[in-house]
Amino acid sequence: MAHQTELNIHTTRKHECVDVTELISRTVSDSGIKTGVCVIFVPHTTAAVIANEHFDPNVAHDIINALDELVPTNKQWRHPEDNAPAHVKAALMTGSLSVPVTEGQLATGRWQGIYFLEFDGPRTRKLSVTVVG
Amino acid sequence: MAHQTELNIHTTRKHECVDVTELISRTVSDSGIKTGVCVIFVPHTTAAVIANEHFDPNVAHDIINALDELVPTNKQWRHPEDNAPAHVKAALMTGSLSVPVTEGQLATGRWQGIYFLEFDGPRTRKLSVTVVG
Amino acid sequence: MAHQTELNIHTTRKHECVDVTELISRTVSDSGIKTGVCVIFVPHTTAAVIANEHFDPNVAHDIINALDELVPTNKQWRHPEDNAPAHVKAALMTGSLSVPVTEGQLATGRWQGIYFLEFDGPRTRKLSVTVVG
Repeated sequence: MAHQTELNIHTTRKHECVDVTELISRTVSDSGIKTGVCVIFVPHTTAAVIANEHFDPNVAHDIINALDELVPTNKQWRHPEDNAPAHVKAALMTGSLSVPVTEGQLATGRWQGIYFLEFDGPRTRKLSVTVVG
Repeated sequence: MAHQTELNIHTTRKHECVDVTELISRTVSDSGIKTGVCVIFVPHTTAAVIANEHFDPNVAHDIINALDELVPTNKQWRHPEDNAPAHVKAALMTGSLSVPVTEGQLATGRWQGIYFLEFDGPRTRKLSVTVVG
Repeated sequence: MAHQTELNIHTTRKHECVDVTELISRTVSDSGIKTGVCVIFVPHTTAAVIANEHFDPNVAHDIINALDELVPTNKQWRHPEDNAPAHVKAALMTGSLSVPVTEGQLATGRWQGIYFLEFDGPRTRKLSVTVVG
């Protein structure tokens, strides 16, 4: 059994960590699937998805900042459009995340949230969610 | 069909690469699923999971060391608790890994093992394994 | 339902970004599965798989170059064989990618392609594809 949904995310800044935990959790409960996995996929090339702490928003800030230092803007990139670093960050972070579904709920850990990472906003983005079980 | 298990991992150091290949392989054989995927998920925010060479333990050592240089401790982090670098490393490495299941076995490559990466130990950790097929 | 295939990839250089979008798309259409996920897995320890822009080949070039700077060759690595950096890059980039399958097709975004990343070629490589739905 597979249940698929496409969510819309509106980002408001160049770099942003959008907490999508509630959106994904609701999609999983609505799917009616009790045991399985929820596959979150970013159909974009300058954005990513991760699971990490969402109680202290500083963690998201530290992740965004660390990526900025690892992939600096002021380098000689071949790809034009000024967004080569955004592509490299998306590649480093990955665009798919699979989270278990247990007793009909998204089974993230106690401190974990799901973040949509925007590296080239603001934009209207899609997030694909497939629940298989 | 979906089969779900939660494993316990006991880490003994601050940074550790725990070889969980045998644990995961057994979980897959026990599931009775013949063809599908095994989704390994880390429900923590300062640990990760990867597949890499496990014949030469130096490879794990090189990975841990490279991460230490990419995400240094002695930086100005916003998140307190001294474990901001552990959160960033977990984000860089990802907390979910999907491995094929073939003829009822975990279908890793010849030189591949599955490593649980601890960045903020020692701790008792959980590892969620879902086999779908 | 699960459909599994093993593809062969021939790489021709030390570092290479091989566009496997067409190969994977065909495998998905051939599976007959209408709604689900396609799990791509690299059974090697010095290669990886990502989704990123494949219209401008410079993006792939920028990704490979950025990784070369993040994981330099001229460091003191413990693992012999001269390919420690390739193992670290594979670990950073991840060896599994899950992409949704919608209406029987690989549901990548408009600008997205699937790249097999070779870090220690030239070699004959395998790529495992499992479609679950």
